Amino acid sequence: MGTASLRIDLGALARNWRDLNSRSVTETGAVVKANGYGLGAPVVARKLAREGVRSFFVAVAEEGAILRGALGPAPRIFVFSGHMDGDTDLIREHKLIPMLNSIDQMLRHFESLPGHEFAVQLDTGMNRLGIEPSEWFAIKDMVLSQAPVLLASHLACADEPTHPMNAEQLRVFKGLTDGIDVPRSLAATGGILLGSEYHFDLTRPGIGRYGGLPFAHAAPVVTLDVPVIQTRILETGESVGYGNAWVAENPTRIATISAGYADGLIRAMGPAAVVFDKAAALPVVGRVSMDLITVDITSLEHDPSSLQILGTHQTVDTVAAMAGTIGYEILTSLGSRYNRQVTE
Amino acid sequence: MGTASLRIDLGALARNWRDLNSRSVTETGAVVKANGYGLGAPVVARKLAREGVRSFFVAVAEEGAILRGALGPAPRIFVFSGHMDGDTDLIREHKLIPMLNSIDQMLRHFESLPGHEFAVQLDTGMNRLGIEPSEWFAIKDMVLSQAPVLLASHLACADEPTHPMNAEQLRVFKGLTDGIDVPRSLAATGGILLGSEYHFDLTRPGIGRYGGLPFAHAAPVVTLDVPVIQTRILETGESVGYGNAWVAENPTRIATISAGYADGLIRAMGPAAVVFDKAAALPVVGRVSMDLITVDITSLEHDPSSLQILGTHQTVDTVAAMAGTIGYEILTSLGSRYNRQVTE
Repeated sequence: MGTASLRIDLGALARNWRDLNSRSVTETGAVVKANGYGLGAPVVARKLAREGVRSFFVAVAEEGAILRGALGPAPRIFVFSGHMDGDTDLIREHKLIPMLNSIDQMLRHFESLPGHEFAVQLDTGMNRLGIEPSEWFAIKDMVLSQAPVLLASHLACADEPTHPMNAEQLRVFKGLTDGIDVPRSLAATGGILLGSEYHFDLTRPGIGRYGGLPFAHAAPVVTLDVPVIQTRILETGESVGYGNAWVAENPTRIATISAGYADGLIRAMGPAAVVFDKAAALPVVGRVSMDLITVDITSLEHDPSSLQILGTHQTVDTVAAMAGTIGYEILTSLGSRYNRQVTE
Repeated sequence: MGTASLRIDLGALARNWRDLNSRSVTETGAVVKANGYGLGAPVVARKLAREGVRSFFVAVAEEGAILRGALGPAPRIFVFSGHMDGDTDLIREHKLIPMLNSIDQMLRHFESLPGHEFAVQLDTGMNRLGIEPSEWFAIKDMVLSQAPVLLASHLACADEPTHPMNAEQLRVFKGLTDGIDVPRSLAATGGILLGSEYHFDLTRPGIGRYGGLPFAHAAPVVTLDVPVIQTRILETGESVGYGNAWVAENPTRIATISAGYADGLIRAMGPAAVVFDKAAALPVVGRVSMDLITVDITSLEHDPSSLQILGTHQTVDTVAAMAGTIGYEILTSLGSRYNRQVTE
């Protein structure tokens, strides 16, 4: 079998959610956008629904439609991108709750789906999604008369607990929403860890549940084992891979494994990366190619049948650091070519 | 609609193949591994079969099985990873041709599927896949008695035409195969462009067909338009996105568009990236996030409804350069969340 095995541990995912839930003084929802951070939104969301999650969040209405099919009619499904042109039918048919981001979206929603549930996303300084404070004060009374079910905002620097932006966004959010009798949400994973004053009525952890920073206590959720295609012995001076990028300084044993950047193993990780045989770290040599990675296995006494990239010895954040990015991108890049095994 | 539109121009893809075919003095095959370089192996391969391609190449047997279902029984489907443990049933049922890479694979193939077609991959210095020269001389007579249908190798530096490795690999390949009455294949896209002495009996272009370097004459095959969720005006000193990474030095108009690194828009491209409104280049500001990218649209007089990332004004190689990688990785990373439109 040439495809690598990606195991997704739903038990660990549920434990991570329970741990974040225990730190959250209020209702704890779950963000499952980007196909459940690459792990499969339907299986992830069904597991969390069984744990008691009642409020889910996705990026776009199309993701919400898939999630509704997986979850049935009961859970609430919020859509971060709001009510965009062309979304009306999906929002109505799948009972989605758009998080309206602009006056344009409000006009569209109130005209096309009067009486249909909605939330409001407020910009508190990240300047990415949400109504600007000046706009909010101008239209607040009109919007509140339409009975939003949630007022939300998003923190730009929550993974840096000492960043002054956190307190500033909290101050702005309270200024925009204090005294309004509508449930509020500000905190994702990072915000939960900042403390209870950030929790309001609903928290919405994402990355922490999947085993990624900033939730350092997270249990690893994914294991990735890649089969070895062949091994070979190189003489000193022989090179490996595209562009002759790596040259053997000593006699070296090389294993070629069957996964590459087409499987989301980001090409940039190249020479800084290691993979594992049990607890033994083995350096990647040469360039990561589309379907293949070459590994120096000289330190092993046997020829391994597979090598591990993600698992006990190496998290998504470790791999991310090797590629100069963040764990989120490693997760969402995990490709479609894997043999995926979901365990409870 | 919150999902971006990815248009795949099969007509351009076919023209690129015909152009490479006209430069190839021999049979021209097609590499469609990694799901047709991210564009969908079934649609890509069916189009190429109609153009006359009779030999296809994939990375692993599982991809071969999908391709056989799309193409029917006639075309040859070669598997670069060879005959791996667990592949036997797939190879037999889907009439795949494993490119055997090692003595282990040969023993497995000859024992489990005697008489079933196979090819041999020879290592000519890339040290990634293929039988080593010393092994080849030891087992050549035995292997040839089993009637391989192709002897192949792969160039490590074909995208650098003046690299001495090209002539060296050609010399080694000829030394390993001259005088043997079995068809030979050495050249992918880069090898075709190196000249006819590299072409032998079968060439196997991949990236050039998809509109990527090193085939500079390629017609662009993919167009990616991303909807704008909302626009806003920033005062001087306001920041955008995670980590407050970008701060407005002047009053600035920002558009937030609905795609991010979960859609394969590699996070590393960040501040070097531009997107387009018709011919107007607009800089990305702040960090690329999972589902969202923020763009400085101050230079536009209107509010665009979508912005273009790939198309006439920007190729996969341009975007790759912004992310410090190669066009191949941009293609294979294109995500599953797009609204995909295939045109003939």
